[in-house]
Amino acid sequence: MEVVNLEDKFARFSEHWSPKILARLNDYHVKAVKLRGEFVWHKHDETDELFLVTKGALVIRFRDRDVALGPGELLVVPKGVEHMPVADEECELLLIEPAGTPNTGDAGGARTVEPAWI
Amino acid sequence: MEVVNLEDKFARFSEHWSPKILARLNDYHVKAVKLRGEFVWHKHDETDELFLVTKGALVIRFRDRDVALGPGELLVVPKGVEHMPVADEECELLLIEPAGTPNTGDAGGARTVEPAWI
Repeated sequence: MEVVNLEDKFARFSEHWSPKILARLNDYHVKAVKLRGEFVWHKHDETDELFLVTKGALVIRFRDRDVALGPGELLVVPKGVEHMPVADEECELLLIEPAGTPNTGDAGGARTVEPAWI
Repeated sequence: MEVVNLEDKFARFSEHWSPKILARLNDYHVKAVKLRGEFVWHKHDETDELFLVTKGALVIRFRDRDVALGPGELLVVPKGVEHMPVADEECELLLIEPAGTPNTGDAGGARTVEPAWI
């Protein structure tokens, strides 16, 4: 049982699109991730996915609209809904979803990464 | 699918020890709560519980030690572990745990409240 200081954890890595595991909550992982640029269109057929922005600005593109999030704003993307995160400038956020949820969802491909604890 | 602005949500209520539901993530609820003073000793036998402080200072007492949390710090209290949140001054935080988890855990009693959406 360890206190997780978000600022400290974000200071420990710089790479983008590579989620780091901060904590486990039952069978869920709380992850820190830094984003910049565009990701890939994907969906998670088995789970919702929570985004909580802590720094910067995030746009989550959906097929029918874009949703903008700033610091202190969260959005739950429902399972099965295609989305693509985009950050014009670097953005820091928390992701909460079941452990083992692949970052690229059903899309797979070169940008799939296995998160490590930090 | 709605963006949740934490500052806006916290501005909508003032009572202490009465969690408000902000979002649903699969079968979990993300809740906002304001604390001041001492709660009751309790545990949740079926689930871990995530505390993420957004404002103020929180102490979570355990039977063998106290853990202090400030803004931007989170702690997962493992299932089955007795704890008592204490806040000398008002503290705002997020709680994440399965929907239906009672705030007083196994203790029950007068301080048990059913959370409402906000």
